[in-house]
Amino acid sequence: MLNERMIGLGSAPNAIRSLFAYGIKRKAEIGEDKVFDYSIGNPSVPAPQQVTECIKRLMDEDPVALHSYTPSPGMLEARQAVANHIQREFGVAADPAQVYLTHGAAAALAICLSAVACPGDEVIVPTPYFTEYKTWIEQAGAHIVEVPCQVPSFQLDVEAIEAAITPKTAAIIVDSPNNPVGAIYSRENLEALAAALSRKEAEFGTKIYLIADEPYRAITYGDEVPYIPCIYPRTLVCYSFSKTLSLPGERLGYIYVSNLMDNVEETTFAIQGAGRSLGYICCSALFQRVLIECIDLPSDVEAYRVNREILTQGLSKIGYEYVEPQGAFYLWVKALEDDDLAFAQRAKEHELLVCPSSGFGGKGYVRMSYCIARETIENSMPALQELWDSYHQD
Amino acid sequence: MLNERMIGLGSAPNAIRSLFAYGIKRKAEIGEDKVFDYSIGNPSVPAPQQVTECIKRLMDEDPVALHSYTPSPGMLEARQAVANHIQREFGVAADPAQVYLTHGAAAALAICLSAVACPGDEVIVPTPYFTEYKTWIEQAGAHIVEVPCQVPSFQLDVEAIEAAITPKTAAIIVDSPNNPVGAIYSRENLEALAAALSRKEAEFGTKIYLIADEPYRAITYGDEVPYIPCIYPRTLVCYSFSKTLSLPGERLGYIYVSNLMDNVEETTFAIQGAGRSLGYICCSALFQRVLIECIDLPSDVEAYRVNREILTQGLSKIGYEYVEPQGAFYLWVKALEDDDLAFAQRAKEHELLVCPSSGFGGKGYVRMSYCIARETIENSMPALQELWDSYHQD
Repeated sequence: MLNERMIGLGSAPNAIRSLFAYGIKRKAEIGEDKVFDYSIGNPSVPAPQQVTECIKRLMDEDPVALHSYTPSPGMLEARQAVANHIQREFGVAADPAQVYLTHGAAAALAICLSAVACPGDEVIVPTPYFTEYKTWIEQAGAHIVEVPCQVPSFQLDVEAIEAAITPKTAAIIVDSPNNPVGAIYSRENLEALAAALSRKEAEFGTKIYLIADEPYRAITYGDEVPYIPCIYPRTLVCYSFSKTLSLPGERLGYIYVSNLMDNVEETTFAIQGAGRSLGYICCSALFQRVLIECIDLPSDVEAYRVNREILTQGLSKIGYEYVEPQGAFYLWVKALEDDDLAFAQRAKEHELLVCPSSGFGGKGYVRMSYCIARETIENSMPALQELWDSYHQD
Repeated sequence: MLNERMIGLGSAPNAIRSLFAYGIKRKAEIGEDKVFDYSIGNPSVPAPQQVTECIKRLMDEDPVALHSYTPSPGMLEARQAVANHIQREFGVAADPAQVYLTHGAAAALAICLSAVACPGDEVIVPTPYFTEYKTWIEQAGAHIVEVPCQVPSFQLDVEAIEAAITPKTAAIIVDSPNNPVGAIYSRENLEALAAALSRKEAEFGTKIYLIADEPYRAITYGDEVPYIPCIYPRTLVCYSFSKTLSLPGERLGYIYVSNLMDNVEETTFAIQGAGRSLGYICCSALFQRVLIECIDLPSDVEAYRVNREILTQGLSKIGYEYVEPQGAFYLWVKALEDDDLAFAQRAKEHELLVCPSSGFGGKGYVRMSYCIARETIENSMPALQELWDSYHQD
């Protein structure tokens, strides 16, 4: 008989992807420029020219060698490139043996969770959070334990997290710069978390993994993004080149098992085993070669910075409230009524596609992705004004 | 705590991949031409020139649109291309809604098994079989039930399969042309299987899926490969372009949910849900576009046909016995002692890398992949002779 859980997941796709699909349909109906699609994190900045040139050049190489299977964790040269990059950027000695290339951060998270959690375990997730964490935690047979962040700073509530840790806690997911809020957790905040995790490891005699989901690490507007493996040794970094190299559809990322943890070898085996078990063979051989050449290219954050200015200034002028975004390309905007689903629905009537916070385990907000064309943001202002007015007529 | 099952899978990689990794290392030590690597199914035929040209051309398109996320089951145009291909090749009306693009056949199988099996269910696998079936069946929480094929024809033993079906049987995996044996199941054999499955569905009031693993469908040497959805309606086809377009490292394949089954919509939801749950987002956006253009290119089977002749004639001349291969690029050769592990180990001392049948749930054989350079096969003959002689000295 079919697996009911899978039917459920398939028949009710996640809110972001549903809205994204609606946007494609709606644009076809009324015109690309009439829909203001703030739904998905599809980068609007093109992949660097060097990526395109690299692929063109690779097309002159022997296609047999170019497109053949690579070892499951990736080509040694590509893993070495990642290790070198980590070493250069963060000053920690990284070994390619602890790098496992993945089909983006989604695969990285699913693999990490299946590697470190057993059926019945618990995984702590600060809320609001990226919608699919719950799916992948439950895939591992574990339970999600939601702990709200502090409001309005949206920093981690370490006291509440510590209180939520039990002998069954296998991991905590930390996503900074944060999707959906755009917050960056401060060094002080992360050090307090690390101390709490270590205390609880000692108290219960367990191992608690910190899964650092970092696809937005390079997209920041001035604040420091502390490198978590240097703060808490039992860290698994999940990284993606979707945003920084603007290659979301090519599925390229990695897991880095910090070699500062005491059980690094066993953990690396578990990661490789989980990848195998979930059906992953290797990342695109072509894009592994692109990675070797392009990993150090800087991200083009400028376009997002401009978008952020236009959007936040426009919203402020109308009267909307939001969390000042420190990183990523998401804005966490207060809904104009308590029911964020109803608010997002009313926005839709004004052709504004925004994701309700309920889908992120939050209440009373919506997420706006501003990794879109600048004109779309500018042209959406009248619709945002009308939406505001519709709540302030009486 | 770490998941013990994943540590086990990661610390003992599958036999094929271990031998493949050993081969890379050994070639670096003693020279590429000194190692006769029959271990892995890495196609030796290059991807068609049109694939390379298509990628070059795509590099002139807008990189934002080119590399962005696609819908999870794939771009509509790519799924339509697959549906059209199915319709043209097999004369069955196929709808893109029932096509789900995957990261190759491995992901397709892992997804199908998680979609149709529940914890505690059973999945029947005719032996010998591709080693990873067991991994993905257990990932779904189900149990593998091995049923040996008939010897020496290596056709399905339908009577034994029917006897093995219980109310817990969720699926059977059918792999034709077969890896590792190279057999193709005849129409008569498959019709008998379909009748048995239908009888048991009626008897137990259950739904039994036939998962058709077909990466080698196009690689045949004259025999008919019946299209299973036309024979048994509750069929899920798992296909890969790894072999036919020689793109194994790019991970491109699909699941086709036959729309002849009575629960096609629910099954399609379960497939989409399982993909989501296992961490899959979408296949490479670039290679989806390659697929749209190149799906109808014919496979270059000629090189494999020549290799097959050279290898089988060479082995016959020495005295080896093997199963006459009807398809794929694998030869199932009788080991020269009962213990196939010991035989493969002795072969290794002669720099011959062959996979022992134990890894495929078989006994007393080895698998030789002949999708390798022709010279390697020719040059391996003295080593194969020495190996033979080492068993016939006394």
